[in-house]
Amino acid sequence: MADPRFFSVAGPFSLRDLAEIAGAEIGDGCDPQATFSDVAPLNTATSGDVAFLDNRRYVGEFEESRAGACLVHPDLAPKAPGGMALLLTPEPYHGYAKVAQTFYPVPVPKAGVHPQAAIDPTARIDDGCRIDAGAVIGPAAEVGSRCHIGANAVLGPGVKLGKDCTIGPRVCLACAILGDRIIIHAGTSIGQDGFGFALGADGHTKVPQLGRVLIEDEVEIGANCTIDRGTGPDTVIGAGTKIDNLVQIGHNVRLGRTCVIVSQVGISGSTATGDMVMMGGQAGLTGHLKIGSGARIGAQAGVMRDVPPGETVGGSPAVPMREWLKGVALMERMVKKKGK
Amino acid sequence: MADPRFFSVAGPFSLRDLAEIAGAEIGDGCDPQATFSDVAPLNTATSGDVAFLDNRRYVGEFEESRAGACLVHPDLAPKAPGGMALLLTPEPYHGYAKVAQTFYPVPVPKAGVHPQAAIDPTARIDDGCRIDAGAVIGPAAEVGSRCHIGANAVLGPGVKLGKDCTIGPRVCLACAILGDRIIIHAGTSIGQDGFGFALGADGHTKVPQLGRVLIEDEVEIGANCTIDRGTGPDTVIGAGTKIDNLVQIGHNVRLGRTCVIVSQVGISGSTATGDMVMMGGQAGLTGHLKIGSGARIGAQAGVMRDVPPGETVGGSPAVPMREWLKGVALMERMVKKKGK
Amino acid sequence: MADPRFFSVAGPFSLRDLAEIAGAEIGDGCDPQATFSDVAPLNTATSGDVAFLDNRRYVGEFEESRAGACLVHPDLAPKAPGGMALLLTPEPYHGYAKVAQTFYPVPVPKAGVHPQAAIDPTARIDDGCRIDAGAVIGPAAEVGSRCHIGANAVLGPGVKLGKDCTIGPRVCLACAILGDRIIIHAGTSIGQDGFGFALGADGHTKVPQLGRVLIEDEVEIGANCTIDRGTGPDTVIGAGTKIDNLVQIGHNVRLGRTCVIVSQVGISGSTATGDMVMMGGQAGLTGHLKIGSGARIGAQAGVMRDVPPGETVGGSPAVPMREWLKGVALMERMVKKKGK
Repeated sequence: MADPRFFSVAGPFSLRDLAEIAGAEIGDGCDPQATFSDVAPLNTATSGDVAFLDNRRYVGEFEESRAGACLVHPDLAPKAPGGMALLLTPEPYHGYAKVAQTFYPVPVPKAGVHPQAAIDPTARIDDGCRIDAGAVIGPAAEVGSRCHIGANAVLGPGVKLGKDCTIGPRVCLACAILGDRIIIHAGTSIGQDGFGFALGADGHTKVPQLGRVLIEDEVEIGANCTIDRGTGPDTVIGAGTKIDNLVQIGHNVRLGRTCVIVSQVGISGSTATGDMVMMGGQAGLTGHLKIGSGARIGAQAGVMRDVPPGETVGGSPAVPMREWLKGVALMERMVKKKGK
Repeated sequence: MADPRFFSVAGPFSLRDLAEIAGAEIGDGCDPQATFSDVAPLNTATSGDVAFLDNRRYVGEFEESRAGACLVHPDLAPKAPGGMALLLTPEPYHGYAKVAQTFYPVPVPKAGVHPQAAIDPTARIDDGCRIDAGAVIGPAAEVGSRCHIGANAVLGPGVKLGKDCTIGPRVCLACAILGDRIIIHAGTSIGQDGFGFALGADGHTKVPQLGRVLIEDEVEIGANCTIDRGTGPDTVIGAGTKIDNLVQIGHNVRLGRTCVIVSQVGISGSTATGDMVMMGGQAGLTGHLKIGSGARIGAQAGVMRDVPPGETVGGSPAVPMREWLKGVALMERMVKKKGK
Repeated sequence: MADPRFFSVAGPFSLRDLAEIAGAEIGDGCDPQATFSDVAPLNTATSGDVAFLDNRRYVGEFEESRAGACLVHPDLAPKAPGGMALLLTPEPYHGYAKVAQTFYPVPVPKAGVHPQAAIDPTARIDDGCRIDAGAVIGPAAEVGSRCHIGANAVLGPGVKLGKDCTIGPRVCLACAILGDRIIIHAGTSIGQDGFGFALGADGHTKVPQLGRVLIEDEVEIGANCTIDRGTGPDTVIGAGTKIDNLVQIGHNVRLGRTCVIVSQVGISGSTATGDMVMMGGQAGLTGHLKIGSGARIGAQAGVMRDVPPGETVGGSPAVPMREWLKGVALMERMVKKKGK
């Protein structure tokens, strides 16, 4: 069970309810009235728990699991141990996500403004918001209904949030317009000046950064990230895109919808992506690139050229993944043969 | 026009004034009395706007631009569309920086100390400072005239700032001495202990870090960076150096003047650079290196040896850029020929 | 001498005391009653200072040093300049660490709660704690004796700290259980949601992150790091492990004891290490790996496979270090011969 100091479990729920929540079929002969009280991994689950099997690598654990119920692909159902209730679905991990959300719903923050928050009198705070201690909200900022502004977060002048946003502790937002249902984790800095200088031997002249950061609905951004505002055009994070921790996004970058950007990626100024682009950890992209929808960028890749839609690239400088893998294999053979 | 929620535009300004500001010549036949009210990119500018052309790649946009005026190199003036007022200069981007600064001057923060700031009674705050809510200023700290200390920033005991510094929200300064006109963006941590341990099988013994961080005039440092204080010698950032976001600078590092350090670079302890050194994004430098003035380090390079003045290096481990490019090309040919 | 604005020096101490502190032998003919008042590097030390020689590279500086005393390996004692008092030890750097800790003891923070801290009435704060301005401590949090909570730090609901912990300014802790004598530097974010989504073409479903972060005794964590909480299992940082700045640690990662993780490393979810593992700067590890005790991972390495105990790996993708070095040398020869 999750540590009750940090998490509150709901339930119990019947197998029938869980099947509906997960979009799953109940396995033959399983009792729809049976109830379950928690989720747990295959290897620690007991009779009251719901587990899931998503990766064939863990079939052995599945076969030996004591979980009371399990979300599993129908093809693997025959391997279930006796007595396990089955929730059959082609997407067990999605089903698990829904089930786990049901057992552990995100707590609705209790509305209210902490007396040690500092809210400018010209800011607009809509109904049902919670503003924690030390939060600072600047002049003319607008915070939509039911937002939660964490402790010591800072919203600069004019920043606008939609509804149901969760702004973590110590987040800083400036020159930013946010949609609805956005989550930003602790320590992320958004909307500061981009890195814009006219370089010169006697010193560098600062170029005013006159754009904004636009963050669309249902974006989630990790901890300690940095997203610079645009130079005149805006920096844009498309709806449903998920960004991990310590990611750097330069000025004028435009990320499409439902992209997945893993930790420590750096995207240089004015690079634009299509939708559903995936970037592995520590990848770096130079500026002014176009990355097509569905492209996949390997971890630690160094992307210096446009990437067509659907292409997978790897290496630094990045090339199509199959070429990079060929090069790695070739190098390995040469080292074995000739390396001294 | 820049979003008025975040930016206030000054002006209008006459072509004559703008020419003086930019250090540009007015093109033949252009009316010096004509006035302009904003800056804008070539492709969205209209008759009241000043644009610039700095990169030949955008000559097509220049030829079709509706900008009322444009900063441009004299060689490209013949390609201007009819009716466009020209500001001729060999350095159009510098000119633009100056013009944009004129239309969008940095607002002078209104002096005053927010009642929710926490300032130690032994700290010295000079005239004209603005201290935002939640800022914490420790004992014996000294803040020069007209500094702006952002919300929830923390200045440790004894920290000293010169004049006209802008310390962003949630910046943390410890054991640091700053010059004048320094800008530090949100979330950066400066002056914490460097990573110093005497390693041992039974545990690592902490080595006291007894130096400071010295930051010279007109340095700008991005968001969420980390700069450790020295071990006894100091960590030094030379005048006019510009540092992007999420950069790590280890103890005793000495950066020269007017260096440019792009995002996510990591510089290990005791490495020293000359002036005007450029480092591309995600480059890493090991410790105790000497990087000569004017050296350029490619993005994602892994520098393990000294770099002579003026040299350009790339790759990991880094080698002279021409060798790295040869190696990349050679590998590409081999993969085409032999790769399976 | 260290800047007295930031550091207070204790002493003077006699050679006899220093020998005991450092676990060193006093050199032949040196006066055990002689006293010393500070530590300093070889090249700037004068007659009242204690220096150390740990790296043969600096033997020249040793021979010319004016330090009054020096920690040195017995083998190098013959090279000492006349009149220098010697503290002989096979581990001079360890000895120096102890001596420097003696001259510059970590100040015991004066106990007390700043009136501008915000402490939930249900939190438990033990004797001798110091809570700085702007710190926010949530419901049911527990803070052990003599902890120092820095300015604007945030401890979420239920977070538990052992004794003698130092939590830097602007650190954020959530869903975390800490041991004793832990140091966390400014701006680090610990315990936020890991990056867990069930991916889908129409959007990504958030998977509840139901684990914690467990940090064992004597861990030190640098500035602006991110450590995600587990998904159900916990994220664990083993006792005595030292983590540099800007390091990313994903959900369910388990680091062993006394590991050393250099700046900007990224460790993906569910990777586990043994004890005394070293990782160089900017190294990246994919998820679900097993890294054996005593393994060493080179700077910028990209580790995609398990690493056996004691192995040293380098390159991206990482291979045994000797193979990587062979490949680098081979490539260099080929570029010289065939590169155009």
